[in-house]
Amino acid sequence: MYQARLTKLYNAMQKAGLDGLVVNPGCSFSYLTGLPMHIMERPTVIFFALGKEPAIVLPKLEAIKLNSLAYNAQGITYDENPQEWQAAFDQAAKATGLAGKRVGTEPRALRLLEYSYLQNAAPGANWVDATAVFADLRNRKDASEVALMRKATQIAQDALLATLPSVRLGVTEKELANELVIQLLRHGCGPELPFAPIVASGPNSANPHAAPSDRPVQDGDMLLFDWGASYEGYVSDLTRTYGIGKVAEKYQIIHRVVEQANAAGRAAGGPGKPCADVDKAARGVIDAAGYGQYFRHRTGHGLGMEAHEDPYMRGDNMQLLEPGMAYTVEPGVYLAGEHGVRIEDDMVVTETGTESLSDLPRGLQFLI
Amino acid sequence: MYQARLTKLYNAMQKAGLDGLVVNPGCSFSYLTGLPMHIMERPTVIFFALGKEPAIVLPKLEAIKLNSLAYNAQGITYDENPQEWQAAFDQAAKATGLAGKRVGTEPRALRLLEYSYLQNAAPGANWVDATAVFADLRNRKDASEVALMRKATQIAQDALLATLPSVRLGVTEKELANELVIQLLRHGCGPELPFAPIVASGPNSANPHAAPSDRPVQDGDMLLFDWGASYEGYVSDLTRTYGIGKVAEKYQIIHRVVEQANAAGRAAGGPGKPCADVDKAARGVIDAAGYGQYFRHRTGHGLGMEAHEDPYMRGDNMQLLEPGMAYTVEPGVYLAGEHGVRIEDDMVVTETGTESLSDLPRGLQFLI
Repeated sequence: MYQARLTKLYNAMQKAGLDGLVVNPGCSFSYLTGLPMHIMERPTVIFFALGKEPAIVLPKLEAIKLNSLAYNAQGITYDENPQEWQAAFDQAAKATGLAGKRVGTEPRALRLLEYSYLQNAAPGANWVDATAVFADLRNRKDASEVALMRKATQIAQDALLATLPSVRLGVTEKELANELVIQLLRHGCGPELPFAPIVASGPNSANPHAAPSDRPVQDGDMLLFDWGASYEGYVSDLTRTYGIGKVAEKYQIIHRVVEQANAAGRAAGGPGKPCADVDKAARGVIDAAGYGQYFRHRTGHGLGMEAHEDPYMRGDNMQLLEPGMAYTVEPGVYLAGEHGVRIEDDMVVTETGTESLSDLPRGLQFLI
Repeated sequence: MYQARLTKLYNAMQKAGLDGLVVNPGCSFSYLTGLPMHIMERPTVIFFALGKEPAIVLPKLEAIKLNSLAYNAQGITYDENPQEWQAAFDQAAKATGLAGKRVGTEPRALRLLEYSYLQNAAPGANWVDATAVFADLRNRKDASEVALMRKATQIAQDALLATLPSVRLGVTEKELANELVIQLLRHGCGPELPFAPIVASGPNSANPHAAPSDRPVQDGDMLLFDWGASYEGYVSDLTRTYGIGKVAEKYQIIHRVVEQANAAGRAAGGPGKPCADVDKAARGVIDAAGYGQYFRHRTGHGLGMEAHEDPYMRGDNMQLLEPGMAYTVEPGVYLAGEHGVRIEDDMVVTETGTESLSDLPRGLQFLI
């Protein structure tokens, strides 16, 4: 599999006019190597160059991991003293002949730390933003990748269902978030969550990116969960919003509007359709209901190894959807100081339309 | 507290000859702002400049978080289309007057993504590695920070003790890692672990940075746990290695050597002593026992908000320890293809010596 991905990478590099490409730990690194490496204070970078064996700079104490690499690569290790590190980068850049060449980077993953070593190691190289190359490699999921995403979605759904019985008046957002994480792990989620779950009650639900607080769940609250699971490197990302006790009618209506916007967004995708259509369909419903100004973010984002990746469901994104692309549909309405509602599903583009990997009920349910 | 840290920051900037400083989400960002922001595809950067109000560039949908900032800062938000983002950076750089100035960065946190916007926004700025400034701000923990680290250590210890009853022949490393994470959360660990726990059995224990695998625990194994908890933004990082059944005498001896190396490393620190002393003391014990070549990493690293931070316990690091500095002591011996042993504690430098925050028994215990 990794050998095939390497071939795909070289083709993509040729198409993009790149002589080389450098990748540090993150999802693209995992996609291309399968090695369990993390971003840390000791830099790790794999160097790819057309017609050359890849080279990888890494700490000596991680060298044993290279045994599981599916293709040949020159491992160049360094010891604990940072003063040695530049020499390792120099050697890798030389082995792959990157000086003066056109070399792709991934600006969302590469740090100044690695970049400084790289600049010194490959003088005269033209460092090019290769975000589109990485996106193109990774954004059409094959059947085995979709199967892992399906499993990650199932784990997330099962975990939420196992968490809901813990919702009672007075339980705090943090307590619910911890319980949800425990249930994710019990249901088979990998030890690294795609993101820390959001559990947001009452006015906190009006903050699209709230962090769980010590606020206790209260009568009349909307209670929003935004959570996901990871499974073998692939992730899910879902949102459901529930009612607690006597929810004012206004918010029940908003919930219905968001549910309809979610349905419209889910229906709008498909092969050959622009990402913009998904956004416009969902936003149109909310606009028509008069809440347009309270839907303050794009309708969704790509999903796969990362919780947020290409393609993005924005009204100005004319990129065409293709079979295998996966993305979220997550319209929301947020009334600051009052309540917010978001309903999020994970979609995959099929040959003929789309499929929602998630199927938890979307209509307003009251937990108390 | 954050106002005081801001004052500390401005003093440190002056001392380092910096006109400005830019920080993106990560531990330094949390330390300086207290805002719950994460690294994501949408860049967030706070700009500090002497004599000016800080400016912060962030996505519009995160703007509500600025309400909890403890000092005044100019919030500059952008919408979903990346083409708008440069303008926000331009505005922030202008407000803080960074063009042509000497501006500090944190290369371990800042990505090419933010750096590219910054370079365009502040033409002629001299971007300086300010790692030492950030380290100097954060590496002497005050009493309230030590209290949080003590709590993070206690949670980790309690979680391991609650996990050990799950160890039996045939249980896999992954199953134990999942159980350990569940116990961490049950005991009060924050939803974001400092790192995914290592559970490594038999030959995997000889890989210092092993990822938990499907390998079942077997008779004769060494079983290594390297895990930590987070609590209110501060972390712990511990390692213990246990015996399973009939462990060959050779590894029992190695365990004793590592235990003595750990004790020597813990005893070697204190105010005014160089970090090198900690490394030399631990390494000396392992060298004397004839296993020096199998202790392949530094003896420890600083600890606080990050699981790995300044100062580093290397034999060549003559940096002097000061009261409030916190670090790990984690000697190990790794025989490739056989077994490995590591024993790790979390230390804090006091006015007169050091204190170990961790006190789980270090001697070889047999779980089966």
